[in-house]
Amino acid sequence: MEPQSSHGGLGPSSRSQVPSFQVMTILGRVAELRAAGADVVSLCAGEPGGGAPAGVSARAAELHASGRALNYTPTLGIEELRTAIAGHYAHWYGVDVDPARVAVTTGSSGAFMAGFLAAFNPGDRVAMARPGYAAYRNILAALGCQVVELDAGPAVRFQPTPALLQEAESVHGPLAGLILASPNNPTGTMVTRVEMAELAAWCEERGVRLVSDEIYHGITYGASGTVGGDDALNEDSPAGASGDRAGVERGVCAWEYSTAAMVISSFSKYWGMPGWRIGWMLMPEDLAPAIGGLSGSVSLCPPAPAQYAAVEAFSEESYAACDAQVAGFARARALVLENQDRLGWTDAAPADGAFYFWAKPGEAMLARYGTSTAYCEALLERAHVALTPGTDFDTAHGEQYVRLSFAAGYDAVAEAIERIVTFQLDS
Amino acid sequence: MEPQSSHGGLGPSSRSQVPSFQVMTILGRVAELRAAGADVVSLCAGEPGGGAPAGVSARAAELHASGRALNYTPTLGIEELRTAIAGHYAHWYGVDVDPARVAVTTGSSGAFMAGFLAAFNPGDRVAMARPGYAAYRNILAALGCQVVELDAGPAVRFQPTPALLQEAESVHGPLAGLILASPNNPTGTMVTRVEMAELAAWCEERGVRLVSDEIYHGITYGASGTVGGDDALNEDSPAGASGDRAGVERGVCAWEYSTAAMVISSFSKYWGMPGWRIGWMLMPEDLAPAIGGLSGSVSLCPPAPAQYAAVEAFSEESYAACDAQVAGFARARALVLENQDRLGWTDAAPADGAFYFWAKPGEAMLARYGTSTAYCEALLERAHVALTPGTDFDTAHGEQYVRLSFAAGYDAVAEAIERIVTFQLDS
Repeated sequence: MEPQSSHGGLGPSSRSQVPSFQVMTILGRVAELRAAGADVVSLCAGEPGGGAPAGVSARAAELHASGRALNYTPTLGIEELRTAIAGHYAHWYGVDVDPARVAVTTGSSGAFMAGFLAAFNPGDRVAMARPGYAAYRNILAALGCQVVELDAGPAVRFQPTPALLQEAESVHGPLAGLILASPNNPTGTMVTRVEMAELAAWCEERGVRLVSDEIYHGITYGASGTVGGDDALNEDSPAGASGDRAGVERGVCAWEYSTAAMVISSFSKYWGMPGWRIGWMLMPEDLAPAIGGLSGSVSLCPPAPAQYAAVEAFSEESYAACDAQVAGFARARALVLENQDRLGWTDAAPADGAFYFWAKPGEAMLARYGTSTAYCEALLERAHVALTPGTDFDTAHGEQYVRLSFAAGYDAVAEAIERIVTFQLDS
Repeated sequence: MEPQSSHGGLGPSSRSQVPSFQVMTILGRVAELRAAGADVVSLCAGEPGGGAPAGVSARAAELHASGRALNYTPTLGIEELRTAIAGHYAHWYGVDVDPARVAVTTGSSGAFMAGFLAAFNPGDRVAMARPGYAAYRNILAALGCQVVELDAGPAVRFQPTPALLQEAESVHGPLAGLILASPNNPTGTMVTRVEMAELAAWCEERGVRLVSDEIYHGITYGASGTVGGDDALNEDSPAGASGDRAGVERGVCAWEYSTAAMVISSFSKYWGMPGWRIGWMLMPEDLAPAIGGLSGSVSLCPPAPAQYAAVEAFSEESYAACDAQVAGFARARALVLENQDRLGWTDAAPADGAFYFWAKPGEAMLARYGTSTAYCEALLERAHVALTPGTDFDTAHGEQYVRLSFAAGYDAVAEAIERIVTFQLDS
């Protein structure tokens, strides 16, 4: 469609001409194929296969069975859930969070929209690593911000560094924000404590808003050593900082170093509740009134049933169930790593956390299909395996990469690997 | 808080300095008072007291009891629900809607955000009647649009007219959009068929995007005659248009006259599901790709459990249950009208539809408290009755008005009236 101004006529706005999020288009096609009877293995979305912890589902079932009217909640969420989320920060990170600084949101998506609106003006420059999550770029672009992509390659484990930020400022001018995602989507890489501390300090000193996407916290492999990961994440730990290890195992929380950061998280990944659309944000003090005010108009409140149910997400049983799911992801991850040679995929990123495997599908496949988009299309249509082409994550090199999500679990991944190997032999 | 640019330092963005939505603040206070043990009658939000139709709740309960993983759905909603919503347009309005033009959204709030982003650029002028729903104004302002308020008083039943639009264009310049709400919040007034046809034609001829907020459709009183309403809504019906009456009874759908309009609706009101956060939009053909693309990044998808459950909203049993709720609203509305003199409230708008009563709390009360905000605060703190001050809806005359929502039902309204009368006598 031709971009067209809405001034003086109909047609879409210029700002709505953001690239559509390919993974959502692919999910649509998966739904169509399944509706037509196809047995599709979908490894394209970050969708844990196991569902919510039993206590959460049971609470939701009871709530609906009671027929109780589910009305609006306070804009920033019910007190019980805000308090429970604050408690989670004490439990995992030893960080003391005032429940009044917790905003419950409609997934992390809701947190990004309200947070970006509250923090950034049109024209503000906001940096993010490339490859990175496409929705950041698209929401910021739709809101008139200038996205500054940091070419964060394997040498820096695909993460921003003060040097990259310095270089970006010298080329583009002062930054207003930095988006950090650790574990990262699509590469799975994580920052160490020292790296987080350095980035937080760099941002605080310059008045740059750090936005820390922590939605994959809890889904980590390196430090736990269960799947052959090393302890590299902890090698920079401050000497004598006993107890820090647990924090790094789950991911480092930006608020351990700077409460000027906006911390964004979600029940979608570790808790296995993507379709429920519930997440949260830790609000920096200076932004809290703006976020509260805007959210009343922009979203009214997050989904009420999900809020009441999510209170059950922080029980011992729920944590145990989630950790069991993570152990399942670890097995699926190990299977992918073991089969990397059979797949012929190269240049894989270290999947420290999250449930993604980011790699090139091999020279033969790229030569045969030209782009990862074409490769993924053919794979979906002919072998009924859904992967995501790299273009969602990397505007420069995305056509050479694919992202495989192993969130669907060992059996789905095992089936997909066999189908991919066969598909590639037949190509 | 002092507005402050995020350029060169932290602090909230300029665009986030929208007035906060008072009703959400009041709801927060209601929750606090209730947590402290107070028996509060909350007539401030548009929250039906009866809950979802039984079939919807039962479907949600089953879904959660099954423990099924609730993953992302297609961005614009599951096919089954899109098709069911399209069927609703055939059933109520005789309008043939392609399910591909239905976007399921996270409440009407989600539809407004995606729709406004897709349709309007920063700087675009968008007209709306004053008094009107505050969130339109706030979202548009946060997105950099210029809100043009039409001073739509009682003479035009608080609705936009071609004459008011013409006048606005002559003062402010060409408009890019018009927001029409019928039934209106806070006044309850509705446009007739002829008025809708005229407004739709005025917009189409000038390339102005009509955004028709139809979330209160189905909650109407005038044409049904049950509560002393007259048939004024139908007096302009085209001669010989038999069967049109039903459409007007439910509200006139903009797509009956122009499919260039964006039609926004919701399960929150007629179906009694505000906390579920589920609504929809009929997408004009030229905006559909932009809305789909943006929504993938902005919201990923609407809440999945609400989508699966809402499919049950269109059964005969569900419609009957909702109509029974509307009959309850009608009884509560009649009670307010009967008690208007006892309350001493004046200048009431005709509540053709929705569940709001918009009036001045009387000269004595305005003299005593100065503003409707102060009146509402005192009423909440001392008599534990929550109303909404008019400032949420009218930036010019709001301090003279209050909005009473009778959605909570007859008993709540009866109790509130007694408390208000006593409070006023004691003031």
